[in-house]
Amino acid sequence: MTAARFERHLFVCTNARAAGNPKGCCSSKGAAEVAEALKERAYAAGLKGRVRVNKAGCLDACEDGVSAVVYPDGIWYRGITLADVDEIVARTLVAGEVVTRLLAPARPARPGR
Amino acid sequence: MTAARFERHLFVCTNARAAGNPKGCCSSKGAAEVAEALKERAYAAGLKGRVRVNKAGCLDACEDGVSAVVYPDGIWYRGITLADVDEIVARTLVAGEVVTRLLAPARPARPGR
Repeated sequence: MTAARFERHLFVCTNARAAGNPKGCCSSKGAAEVAEALKERAYAAGLKGRVRVNKAGCLDACEDGVSAVVYPDGIWYRGITLADVDEIVARTLVAGEVVTRLLAPARPARPGR
Repeated sequence: MTAARFERHLFVCTNARAAGNPKGCCSSKGAAEVAEALKERAYAAGLKGRVRVNKAGCLDACEDGVSAVVYPDGIWYRGITLADVDEIVARTLVAGEVVTRLLAPARPARPGR
């Protein structure tokens, strides 16, 4: 491993699919606004340079609403709304705690997807 | 930590800045093509469902050419070109090895950036 550049690195899926696609997508559920709010609140909490918040392409969790993953912890959140942003920043990005009610359900590996 | 969804998760910066921006950007150095090639080769190597390859927003390494990070390992690569793709897939994504010549230089935390 190289030296860690960030204590935590949060990626928010902002993938967009065409309207009517049966998979749905995070974009249509407000992902861009959630990602922006997470970034703003994280930086307002003094985490700039320590924690990075990025938008990402499809995280393969389309059914999970607005999805995000926090590394290196490997915490997967689902169904994130603007109302969850403060708690994610305070508990997960600052303190490294898991917000249990937002945890994506465990699932087996899906080879071939 | 929740159950790991992927053995490795690679994020390639594909951020674009306006031409002439002194920071430069990964997009102008072929990041989209590199990201697509990494995804194709990874899936061709049978890693679909085990390893995820995503495009990401700015990884704050604009000066490092096409940049990418592999989690949970925390390996940062810089200056990636299409010629590096096969090696990254075979050595890092499949075997978990570091391609030393592509390692981004260590740097201190940059609070405030």
